[in-house]
Amino acid sequence: MTAPIEEKLRQIKLVALDVDGVLTDGNINIGERGEIYKAFSAKDGLSISAAIRHGLKVIIVTGRVSSIVHNRARELNLTQVCEGVQDKGKMLRQLASHYKLELSEIAFMGDDLNDLAALTRAGLAAAPADAVPEVLAVSGFIAKKTGGHGAVRELVEAILKAQGLWEKMVTEYLQAGQGDKQ
Amino acid sequence: MTAPIEEKLRQIKLVALDVDGVLTDGNINIGERGEIYKAFSAKDGLSISAAIRHGLKVIIVTGRVSSIVHNRARELNLTQVCEGVQDKGKMLRQLASHYKLELSEIAFMGDDLNDLAALTRAGLAAAPADAVPEVLAVSGFIAKKTGGHGAVRELVEAILKAQGLWEKMVTEYLQAGQGDKQ
Amino acid sequence: MTAPIEEKLRQIKLVALDVDGVLTDGNINIGERGEIYKAFSAKDGLSISAAIRHGLKVIIVTGRVSSIVHNRARELNLTQVCEGVQDKGKMLRQLASHYKLELSEIAFMGDDLNDLAALTRAGLAAAPADAVPEVLAVSGFIAKKTGGHGAVRELVEAILKAQGLWEKMVTEYLQAGQGDKQ
Amino acid sequence: MTAPIEEKLRQIKLVALDVDGVLTDGNINIGERGEIYKAFSAKDGLSISAAIRHGLKVIIVTGRVSSIVHNRARELNLTQVCEGVQDKGKMLRQLASHYKLELSEIAFMGDDLNDLAALTRAGLAAAPADAVPEVLAVSGFIAKKTGGHGAVRELVEAILKAQGLWEKMVTEYLQAGQGDKQ
Repeated sequence: MTAPIEEKLRQIKLVALDVDGVLTDGNINIGERGEIYKAFSAKDGLSISAAIRHGLKVIIVTGRVSSIVHNRARELNLTQVCEGVQDKGKMLRQLASHYKLELSEIAFMGDDLNDLAALTRAGLAAAPADAVPEVLAVSGFIAKKTGGHGAVRELVEAILKAQGLWEKMVTEYLQAGQGDKQ
Repeated sequence: MTAPIEEKLRQIKLVALDVDGVLTDGNINIGERGEIYKAFSAKDGLSISAAIRHGLKVIIVTGRVSSIVHNRARELNLTQVCEGVQDKGKMLRQLASHYKLELSEIAFMGDDLNDLAALTRAGLAAAPADAVPEVLAVSGFIAKKTGGHGAVRELVEAILKAQGLWEKMVTEYLQAGQGDKQ
Repeated sequence: MTAPIEEKLRQIKLVALDVDGVLTDGNINIGERGEIYKAFSAKDGLSISAAIRHGLKVIIVTGRVSSIVHNRARELNLTQVCEGVQDKGKMLRQLASHYKLELSEIAFMGDDLNDLAALTRAGLAAAPADAVPEVLAVSGFIAKKTGGHGAVRELVEAILKAQGLWEKMVTEYLQAGQGDKQ
Repeated sequence: MTAPIEEKLRQIKLVALDVDGVLTDGNINIGERGEIYKAFSAKDGLSISAAIRHGLKVIIVTGRVSSIVHNRARELNLTQVCEGVQDKGKMLRQLASHYKLELSEIAFMGDDLNDLAALTRAGLAAAPADAVPEVLAVSGFIAKKTGGHGAVRELVEAILKAQGLWEKMVTEYLQAGQGDKQ
C-alpha cells in the first residue's frame, strides 16, 4: 500500500532546511560579540552526509546571517547555503528554478511563522515535533523528535527509505571493515 | 465571554521582561572571564520583533549588567534595556511615568523573589511555568512553557491575540512571496 | 512536631557544596584550551546570596581547579573556595576546625563517590535528585530537583525556612520599592 | 546464576568509546572557527578514571578530529585516542592486535550507523538508550541513560561490578579521610 506521504517522499530531490529550531533546538546563544555558537545534532549530520552522497541536494535557508552556519555546511558538504533570506517562499521558487526542479520535488522543514510561505509552497512540508501550531497545521510530515534533536534525521531517513536507499546504506555500514578479515 | 485576564491582556502597551529564567532558562554560563553567553529562544525572538513592529513597547529589566543582553536587545530592536536594577518595583513605576502609561497598561514577567515587587505593581503579572512558588502565587498569567523555552512567546502571543493582531500577522506570513507567483 | 531533618536544618551554620553535578548539571564543557564554561543556576545563586546576607557561611569544595569557579564565587560573595581537594572528608574536618564549628553545624551537598567521605562526616548530608545511588543511600536530605537545576536552592531554602529567615526575606522582597509610593 | 551478559562483562580488558552521542549528548557546538566545545559528563569521567586505575584500558575511537577530545582524554588519563577513524571495525581489530587481546575482551559503545562495524566485531556491543534503532538491534548492553548523561558510567560500572572491583572502590571512597580522625 502506498500512502500519499510515501508518494511525496519518493519524489523529493532537494531538501531545504531552516536552521534555528530545525537544525538546532532554537537556542540563540549570545556572547559579548554576538552569537557564539549553534548546537547541531551529530545524528542529523550523519543522515545529511549520506543523503548528499546518494545524490540528494540539501540546502540551508535561513533568515539570519552567520559564519557558524557556513562552518557546519562545510563539514556536511551541503549543496548550498541561502542566508539573510527575508522571504523563504520566494527563495524556494528560485531554488526550484535554479536546479530545474518542480516544487513537488522539494521538501522544506521549518518551525515558525516565517517558514509558513515556504512550507505552503514546498511539495513536502515538514516540521519538528516542537514547531509552532500554525506550522504543524500546514505540515504533512511531523517528526516525532524536536528541532536539533533528530527531527531532520527523521525526515532525511524517511526520504532515503521511501527511495529504497536506506537499507543498502545500513548494509554497507555493517560490512565496513570486513575486507580486513583474514 | 470576556475573562478578566483577556481584559488585562487587551490593555497592555508595554511588556517588561526579566532576563535570567524568563528570556533564558536561568543558566548562568561562567567562563574564565565571566559570563560567556546566554541562551535565548528564537521563538521568543520572533514574537518580540512582531510585537514591536505592531507598536508594543518591549523592555528588559534585569539586575545583572552584561553586554550580552544589549546584543540580543539590538537584534530584536527592543525599546529599552534597564540593567543593574536593584529595585524592579521602583523601575516599573519609573517606566510608567517615562512612557506616560498607567501601571494597568504594563505587563511584567519574572521568575524569582527579586521580581516580586515588580510583579505586584504591574497591571499584568506573568511567570514562566518554572518560576518559584512565591512568584506563581502572585501571577495572573502563568505560561505552560518554561523560561528560555517559549514562556515569553506565550505571553506576547496572548497579548497580540487579545488585541486582534495575531491572526492578521499569521495571514501576512502565509502570503509572503505570493507576489512573485506568475 | 519536629522531624529529625528539621532539627538538623536548624543547626546548620555552614553549607559546603560540591561543584560538578551539584552547582552544575555535571556537564564538563571542554574547548580547545580546556574547560570553557560551567552552567550555574540563577535560582541557586539568589538563595546563596540571601543565605550569606543572613549570616550563613557558604563554601565550595571541589576536586577540580578552575578560574571559572572563582568567578562564580565572587559574583555570589561566597565565604571560601576550596579547590583541588583530593580528600573532601578531611577538608570538612579542617573547615569545622577553622571556623570553630561542630560537624553537626555543617551541611554538605555532593553527588558522586568522591563526595562520600564528606557526606558521611557532615551533620547534614544532602544530594541532588540525580546523585549516584551510593550517595543517595547516605543522604538525609534528597532534593526533588537535579544538580544545576535547583537542588542547591532547595537545600538553602530548607535551611533558611527551618531557621525562620525565609518568610521575612520574602516579605522584604515584596515590599521593595514601596518607599517610592506617593 | 551467571547470565551471558555477566560472563561477557567479566572478560572485558579494553573499553573503546565513540565520542559524539556516547561520551557527549551528540550536540556538535559550532562557533565562528569550528567546534567550540563538547559537553562531557563528570559522572562518566569518575568511572573512567577509576577503571583505568584498576587496570582496564579505555580508548576513544572517533571519526572526527579535534583537540577537544585530547583535552578530555588527558584529564581522564585515557589509554589512547584514535581519531579521524573512517572504519571503526578495522580499528577495533588493530587495537586487539596491538594490545594482544581477543575481540571477546573488548567492549565498544557506539550510537549511530558508522559504529555498526565496530559493534558487530566487539566482544561486548554497548549502546546509550538514545542510540539509533539499527545500533540498538545489535547491542547486548543497552544503557538506561542517554549519551553524555551517564551511558558510559553505566557500562564501566557494570564491568567493574562484574569483575568484583566496584564494591571495593566504594568502600575506599567511604573511608577516605578516616586516617585524620583522632
